[in-house]
Amino acid sequence: MNYYGDSLNRLIDEFGRLPGIGQKSAQRLAFYIINQSEDKAVSLSEAILAAKKNIKYCSVCCNITDADPCAVCGSPKRDASTVMVVEDPRDMAAYERTNEFKGTYHVLHGAISPMNGIGPNDIKIKELLNRISEGNITEVILATNPNVEGEATAMYINKLIKPVAENVKITRIAHGVPVGGDIEYVDQVTLSRALSGRQEM
Amino acid sequence: MNYYGDSLNRLIDEFGRLPGIGQKSAQRLAFYIINQSEDKAVSLSEAILAAKKNIKYCSVCCNITDADPCAVCGSPKRDASTVMVVEDPRDMAAYERTNEFKGTYHVLHGAISPMNGIGPNDIKIKELLNRISEGNITEVILATNPNVEGEATAMYINKLIKPVAENVKITRIAHGVPVGGDIEYVDQVTLSRALSGRQEM
Repeated sequence: MNYYGDSLNRLIDEFGRLPGIGQKSAQRLAFYIINQSEDKAVSLSEAILAAKKNIKYCSVCCNITDADPCAVCGSPKRDASTVMVVEDPRDMAAYERTNEFKGTYHVLHGAISPMNGIGPNDIKIKELLNRISEGNITEVILATNPNVEGEATAMYINKLIKPVAENVKITRIAHGVPVGGDIEYVDQVTLSRALSGRQEM
Repeated sequence: MNYYGDSLNRLIDEFGRLPGIGQKSAQRLAFYIINQSEDKAVSLSEAILAAKKNIKYCSVCCNITDADPCAVCGSPKRDASTVMVVEDPRDMAAYERTNEFKGTYHVLHGAISPMNGIGPNDIKIKELLNRISEGNITEVILATNPNVEGEATAMYINKLIKPVAENVKITRIAHGVPVGGDIEYVDQVTLSRALSGRQEM
């Protein structure tokens, strides 16, 4: 039955379609909205439209951005000759938070995953090849996720770049035991990777 | 740092202000929005504005509604002489789902709670008294929550109505052990209420 009227039911439905928001949460959010001042509802509503409208891909690294080129590619402090290839803008943000990396990024927006119907042409690999063919890049760091899809994508890109860019160093981020982790609880594959990747002290 | 651009950061902030949505969830929701088609973003955005704009209180029962009177008060099948007083529209919806109650409701939109600065004038008690003074009501069922605020509110309303409406029966929903519950785990107050409220079989 229609307990609350169409407008509120529609809002509950809309919230319920968002990922991780169930029926109860959707109801709580909708009630929160209607109990707030109109300003706040307008503000949320506008933010949704603005994000959808203003967001575009950076023409250099394919990161999502308002301004083209994005803040990283546009910064004179960054070393454009080193490119870290990540799957997702959130992975880029995670690396930015380390404050360690001074190069630039390339965002693939996904990983090759035949199971999910995602092939090499569905992610931004062509754009990466174009960047490399311009000849200013000296190192490509493959920082795709350490899972099946990420590893396959890294291997695919490696094979693709190798023949066309002989002077480009291609590296993969290290696998190993996470800092602060407990060796007892680390899985076998990670442990054997940590062993084979051991470095002299 | 501004990793994603202003529009997306603003959307993440806006989502993060909603109840029960932390930083990580806000980020996930914002990325979901920008990866959806524009229709869906517009649809959510409009639903928020429409709910805020169209929602009003029913002039009879103070329930939130698009149309005045609300679906319950406007229905000829409902018995307007019996009024169930609830704290919240969601409480009303909970009773509606039982399909047992054929009377109408009165939604207080809160309970008296001096600790939170909510007095009798902050909830819809005046509107209830006005309804009763019109003289068509024969029973008022106090269905406020079974907690300190709800009990205090029920007692307050009872005292207020008694002198002005001698022919109106005032009742309170029964306290007792919940159906499907396990007596072993029911708290003492509920158990003693269940005992004192025992009924002949």
